[in-house]
Amino acid sequence: MNNRIQIFDTTLRDGEQVPGCGLSKNEKITIAKALEELGVDVIEAGFPISSPGDFQSVEAVSKEVKDVTVCALSRAVEKDIEVAADAVKHAKRPRIHTGIGTSDQHVFTKIKTTREDILLRAERCVKYAKKFVEDVEFYAEDAGRTDNEFLAKVIQVAVNAGATVVNIPDTTGYCLPEEYGKKIKFLCDNVIGIENVAISTHCHNDLGLATANSIEAIKNGARQVECTINGIGERAGNTSLEEVVMILKKHNWLNYQTGIDSTKIYPMSQLVSSTMNMPVQPNKAIVGSNAFAHSSGIHQDGVIKNRDNYEIIAPEEVGVDESSIILTARSGRAALNFRMGKLGVQLSKDELETVYEKFLEVADRVSVVNDAELKSLVSQYLITNTNF
Amino acid sequence: MNNRIQIFDTTLRDGEQVPGCGLSKNEKITIAKALEELGVDVIEAGFPISSPGDFQSVEAVSKEVKDVTVCALSRAVEKDIEVAADAVKHAKRPRIHTGIGTSDQHVFTKIKTTREDILLRAERCVKYAKKFVEDVEFYAEDAGRTDNEFLAKVIQVAVNAGATVVNIPDTTGYCLPEEYGKKIKFLCDNVIGIENVAISTHCHNDLGLATANSIEAIKNGARQVECTINGIGERAGNTSLEEVVMILKKHNWLNYQTGIDSTKIYPMSQLVSSTMNMPVQPNKAIVGSNAFAHSSGIHQDGVIKNRDNYEIIAPEEVGVDESSIILTARSGRAALNFRMGKLGVQLSKDELETVYEKFLEVADRVSVVNDAELKSLVSQYLITNTNF
Repeated sequence: MNNRIQIFDTTLRDGEQVPGCGLSKNEKITIAKALEELGVDVIEAGFPISSPGDFQSVEAVSKEVKDVTVCALSRAVEKDIEVAADAVKHAKRPRIHTGIGTSDQHVFTKIKTTREDILLRAERCVKYAKKFVEDVEFYAEDAGRTDNEFLAKVIQVAVNAGATVVNIPDTTGYCLPEEYGKKIKFLCDNVIGIENVAISTHCHNDLGLATANSIEAIKNGARQVECTINGIGERAGNTSLEEVVMILKKHNWLNYQTGIDSTKIYPMSQLVSSTMNMPVQPNKAIVGSNAFAHSSGIHQDGVIKNRDNYEIIAPEEVGVDESSIILTARSGRAALNFRMGKLGVQLSKDELETVYEKFLEVADRVSVVNDAELKSLVSQYLITNTNF
Repeated sequence: MNNRIQIFDTTLRDGEQVPGCGLSKNEKITIAKALEELGVDVIEAGFPISSPGDFQSVEAVSKEVKDVTVCALSRAVEKDIEVAADAVKHAKRPRIHTGIGTSDQHVFTKIKTTREDILLRAERCVKYAKKFVEDVEFYAEDAGRTDNEFLAKVIQVAVNAGATVVNIPDTTGYCLPEEYGKKIKFLCDNVIGIENVAISTHCHNDLGLATANSIEAIKNGARQVECTINGIGERAGNTSLEEVVMILKKHNWLNYQTGIDSTKIYPMSQLVSSTMNMPVQPNKAIVGSNAFAHSSGIHQDGVIKNRDNYEIIAPEEVGVDESSIILTARSGRAALNFRMGKLGVQLSKDELETVYEKFLEVADRVSVVNDAELKSLVSQYLITNTNF
């Protein structure tokens, strides 16, 4: 089996539909170009039927990017598919992403129809999309809560109708990793011809499990991961691109590869955060401002001795300049000495002891002790006392 | 086996050591009292040896909380343990948390010693702590990267020395769920007397897997989860309390219980975020401001028909007032009509069509369409045209 994992970025679609994240056409182009540089395989550029502005954006992205597949979302509705096809017609590699809800909840409560009708509509939408493009991805909305037997029937219909990719979204972010992995395996074992298409994951983070679910799906046969930069998206967001990519990279014994240039991850994260006005919390994995900061004494001492003691990713691997040693009331002598060294101050053991005691008093008062305060400490308690 | 999962909150220790999160004594007391109300089983209140301020805070928390266990951190050093014991001596249920690094990286590079010495120090620190308190938790730092055979030896020593809880930290956030689960199972199968102590998880989120790892550990025998509110902590932070609790609650077929009152989760999250000056990103699971917001047309329509279509957690379950329908360029007619209804405007199908077209133009221009803009739309394109 091919171990190359396709990275399908939906920052411009699932990410962009978040309150306050709306992008202009030019902003979408800027992000799309950066995604291409980052090395994603597919850019889902938007949902063209949703508004005239979004149609124009998808069209513009299709014209601007070079080798990456450009994908447009549609419901299982002819008009949607036509508009999606029109929006991506200038793309070198166009894809239409179409589909319908398959869980009992969606079939009976939302769409208010029968399972038989869902099978018919699934077939029809894939066949209709195939009239416009070769590359058609089918999604089974709320697949996470769909009974596996019925899901396999729907996916069988989509595969038979010519889908090149089948997307198994955990739309509500409900699945546990084991459960989601078993679902993917069930499809691998029960859909005829599944080996000729790519199974895609599309996980939501409502319970904090989107990344784990995506990885478990890969281990069970999925070969495309739908994700967003910084994990943005509806509600608690989508799988974070940066987390999936770095897990596969740091656990290379799993033997899966992506086309992502990880050194572009941090700049990409910053671009999306600033353009979409979507703050990244300091403790966000990989791209948070504290991801490489060490503040407790035990950790700082360990990092100064050898980074590998507390860091599994070197900051430069993801495009971050340098891991920072931040001085707080939890910092130890080693960290203080390290930062003093950076300021050009060499301390004897006794001097360090003197300054450290005073440092703790300052640190209990202010939260983070900065360079100016360090210099003031040295001049107050050391230089004046020792006259050196 | 007992299925009650102990929630060990380390917001005041691992969370508080984050740059800029330092708390005053009174702030620590406020948060500790709120944690007790929330229903946590253990509060790790600080690392008393680290600074005089932290010692006073741990002491104050010990005096203030009622039934919750109050825990103090220490290294495997006599002085640390004495100070920790002193800080928790007023607690109704005091606990000392002590331990040492066990991975090759920590043993040989950081501590620069031998495995035999680690076994000796592990035994010694637990025995010394037992002189002061009955409840002693032992941590094997960097257990995540520790060879399982050696880890079992260290844990055996700690159990024999009288540890009541053994903590298996994935200090660097490196483990995959399967790997971490197997580690816990290995200990259950290879440490004599392990059934008489609680195995604790302490996961970091460097690869976005802290929550999944904690859950996998529970499934393999762990009965205590160390976590923080909003997942704050060193670098990318710790396991999020809110995620673990809600996973166990929503997947009640797993049959694990906690003592947490989930309706207090959101207020608790807000308290920690504001007191510690640590923003929660909008797309944070459970407690992000967008966690219950729906903005795309398909989702909004589904939620208006039945919340369960796109929501697995009712907002009120975690203390959030109401899930919000936010109007953007990705919103459909159903959402517009719903919000118009909330404003007291009843639209016919044709009227809705008229207003929707104009609404999309506005939405393409501004990111979120607010009530004032909606009213202006109605008065411009409907009331004036129809004179009703």
